[in-house]
Amino acid sequence: MTTMELLTRAKAAKGAMAQADTNTKNQALLAMADELLAGQEEILAANALDLAAARGTVSDVMLDRLALSPDRIAGMAEGMRQVAGLPDPVGQVLRRVERPNGIAIERTAVPMGVIAIIYESRPNVTSDAAALALKAGSACVLRGGKEAHRSAAAIVACLKRGLERAGLPADALALVEDTSRASANELMTAAGLVDLLIPRGGAGLIRACVDNATVPVIETGTGICHIYVDKQAELDMALDILTNAKCSRPSVCNAAEVCLVHKDIAPNFLPCLRQRLVDQRKAAGQIPVELRLDETAAAIIEGTPAGEADFDTEFLDYIMAVRVVDSVEQAMAHIAAHSTGHSECIVTGDEAAAQRFLKGVDAAAVYHNASTRFTDGGEFGLGCEMGISTQKLHARGPMGLEELCCYKYIVRGAGQIR
Amino acid sequence: MTTMELLTRAKAAKGAMAQADTNTKNQALLAMADELLAGQEEILAANALDLAAARGTVSDVMLDRLALSPDRIAGMAEGMRQVAGLPDPVGQVLRRVERPNGIAIERTAVPMGVIAIIYESRPNVTSDAAALALKAGSACVLRGGKEAHRSAAAIVACLKRGLERAGLPADALALVEDTSRASANELMTAAGLVDLLIPRGGAGLIRACVDNATVPVIETGTGICHIYVDKQAELDMALDILTNAKCSRPSVCNAAEVCLVHKDIAPNFLPCLRQRLVDQRKAAGQIPVELRLDETAAAIIEGTPAGEADFDTEFLDYIMAVRVVDSVEQAMAHIAAHSTGHSECIVTGDEAAAQRFLKGVDAAAVYHNASTRFTDGGEFGLGCEMGISTQKLHARGPMGLEELCCYKYIVRGAGQIR
Repeated sequence: MTTMELLTRAKAAKGAMAQADTNTKNQALLAMADELLAGQEEILAANALDLAAARGTVSDVMLDRLALSPDRIAGMAEGMRQVAGLPDPVGQVLRRVERPNGIAIERTAVPMGVIAIIYESRPNVTSDAAALALKAGSACVLRGGKEAHRSAAAIVACLKRGLERAGLPADALALVEDTSRASANELMTAAGLVDLLIPRGGAGLIRACVDNATVPVIETGTGICHIYVDKQAELDMALDILTNAKCSRPSVCNAAEVCLVHKDIAPNFLPCLRQRLVDQRKAAGQIPVELRLDETAAAIIEGTPAGEADFDTEFLDYIMAVRVVDSVEQAMAHIAAHSTGHSECIVTGDEAAAQRFLKGVDAAAVYHNASTRFTDGGEFGLGCEMGISTQKLHARGPMGLEELCCYKYIVRGAGQIR
Repeated sequence: MTTMELLTRAKAAKGAMAQADTNTKNQALLAMADELLAGQEEILAANALDLAAARGTVSDVMLDRLALSPDRIAGMAEGMRQVAGLPDPVGQVLRRVERPNGIAIERTAVPMGVIAIIYESRPNVTSDAAALALKAGSACVLRGGKEAHRSAAAIVACLKRGLERAGLPADALALVEDTSRASANELMTAAGLVDLLIPRGGAGLIRACVDNATVPVIETGTGICHIYVDKQAELDMALDILTNAKCSRPSVCNAAEVCLVHKDIAPNFLPCLRQRLVDQRKAAGQIPVELRLDETAAAIIEGTPAGEADFDTEFLDYIMAVRVVDSVEQAMAHIAAHSTGHSECIVTGDEAAAQRFLKGVDAAAVYHNASTRFTDGGEFGLGCEMGISTQKLHARGPMGLEELCCYKYIVRGAGQIR
C-alpha cells in the first residue's frame, strides 16, 4: 500500500479511535501485548533477517539496538500493559467556566487525530510509540528505519490483530512500507492527513522535518546539556552529578556534554574532575572521559585543547567539553549561545545564584543540584514518554499521554446569541 | 534598521522582558497608554498621510478600518490599561510533583521570547498585539500592512517611550520598516530569532506562513463555521442563532457561513429561514442574506443555486450556503470535509444527538444551542485575545495571555543522581 493510502485509511479510522472509550482502548492494548507474545516466533524470524542484512554494514552498537530476544519482546509487551494502566487523557475537562450569559465553556482534552512518527532502528519503539499514540486516542502511522523494517512489520502485524480483537479498526495503526527518504518527505508534507509528526532520531532527521514539514511537528531530542559548577558548589555533589550526567548513559539526549566551572573554584575542582572522570575510571577498567578544555582549564589540568565546535557538539560519547567562566551570568550567556534547549543544570549552595539560573536559562528543564539525566517521562512521573520536546510550542520536555492530546472548547447554551 | 537588526535587538531584549516583574510590566503598559494619548497629534497626523495615500486605492470599508480618531486612540489606550489589569501568566506553577527520590519538579509558565506578528491594516492591532505580547513577558516584533505603516510607526514610537519610562528596553518592541513581502519572509525564516510567529490576516497570508515558515507558527482565523439545525431543533432558537451568527458581524471569522438542515424539518424550517434572513431584513431596510441552496433546499425555497465552491468559501459577507442533510452523522461528515476547524454548532433539543456532535466534531470550539459568535477571548473570559488559533498544536481557539506563554520544568534537588 502506498504511504498516501495508509494515511487516508488512518484518517478514516481516527474518528473510531477518538470515540473509543477508555476500556476499549485498554482492552486493545492488552490484546496487542498478548499478540506480541503469541507472535514471538514470527517477530524473531523477521528480526533475524534484519540482523543478517545489517551485519557488517553497521556498528555493533547498532546491531545490539536492532536485536530482539524473547526477553526484549516480553519487555515490549509489558510496556504496552503499563500504558493500558495509565489514566486516559481524552475527555478530561482542563478548565470550566460559566459565563454571566449562562453559556458553559469546557476546555476539554481531545485526540490529535493522526500522529505520524519517524524513527530509526530500535524495534521496540514500534510498540512503545503505537501504544502511546493509540491510548491518546489517535491513529498512528509509523515510519521506521530501513534496517529494522522486517522486524517492525512483524510487530505491527501482531499489534493490528490485537486492535481488531478489541473491535478497533486495524487501519488505526500502520507501518509505512517505503523506507526511502521519499516516504519521510510524504509524511512531512501530508497536510490534512497528518495532524502531528514526531521525528525521533538524529539531528539531521529532526532538522529535515523542521525545515521541510508543512504538517505540525514536535522537535525532539537533541541535547547539548550543560552542568555549571558554581563557586559555591559542594565539590563532591558536583562530581557525582557530572559523573552521572556524563557517564551513566552517554548515548542519550539528557546526558551532559559540557561542564562550565566558575573561575574561583576551577583550580580546586578541575583536578578532582580529571581524577574522577579520567583516572579513577581508567583504574576501574571503565572507559575514561576525554576532556576537551578551553585555555583556562588547560592551564590547570591536562586534556585535549577544545576547538570551537566542541561547545556546539552533541558528543553522545565519553567526551566532555570544559570551560572556565567568570560568573553565573557568563555561564548563562554561554548556555544561551550554545544550548539546544533541552536540560541545563547549576550546582551551587548559593540559593540566589540558583534562582537567577533557574529563572534566566531558557530550556525545557532547568536543574538545581540534580543530574540532567532525570529529564525523562518516567522520572518526571508521566509514566511513559514519546520523546523529549526541545521546542516551545505545545509540549516542552518529556511528552506523555497528555502532551499527545490537544484540546477543544465545548460550549453549551440555551439559545444564547451575542 | 533592517529586519534582521530589529530581530537581533529584540532577542537581546527578551531576557529583560522575561525577568521583568508583574508590577514593572503593568507600569510599562500604563505608561504606554499615557504616551499614546500624549502622542495623539503625531499619530493622527501620520494617520492622515496613510489615509490620503490609500484613498481611491482601497474600499471604503478598508478606509474605515485604517482611520484613527481621538476616540479610537482613547480606545487603544484603554485596551492597554485593561491588559495591565489582567493576571500575569509568567511564573505560574502549572503542575508540581515531588518524586520519591526527593526531586521537586515544577512545570512553570515562561515567556516565549520573541513573538513576531504579521498583520494587515487596522492600526489598533499595533497597540493590542504589543500589549499582549509584552505582558506575556516576550519581546514583540510587529510587521503591519503597507497602508497603515505611518500610523503604526507613530504608535510604536509612543509605545517605546512608555516602555523606557518603566525601565524596560525600547528594543523589546519593534515595527519592521520594510513592508514588502520580503520582510514577511524574513520573519518566517528567522530561526533562532523568532520564537513564535502569529499571522493575523487573510487566508493567503496564513497559508504562506504555514507553507514557508521555519519558525514556530500559530495559524489564526480562517473560519468556515457551520450551524446544523437538527430535526429536534427549536425553530425560533435556530433562527435566532443563525441570524446572529450570520448577520451580527459578517466580516469576522466566527460568523457562520453554512447552514445544514435536517431533512425532516427542512420543509418547515427553510421558509422561516428565508423569511428571517431575506424578507424581514429587506422590509427593515437591512442588507438581506443571499442564500446559496443545494438541490434539496432549492426545491423548498427560492435562492441562488449553490456551486461546489460555496461550501468551501469563507464569504465574510451577507451570503450563506444551505444544505439539507439526512442525519446528524451526515452533518458531521459534511463538517469534517469542509470545516476549517474554527467553530461549529448544533441546534437541537436532543441531548444524545448533541453529545455525538460535540464529541465527534473536530474544531477549536463546538457549540450546542449557542451562536458561534462567542468564539472570542473576551466572551470566553480570557480578558483579551491575540487571535483565534485554528491549529491543534499549543493553542486552540482564542489565545489569551496564557496561550502566549510556554512552560519549562524547574527541577530542584539535593544532589540526586540517576
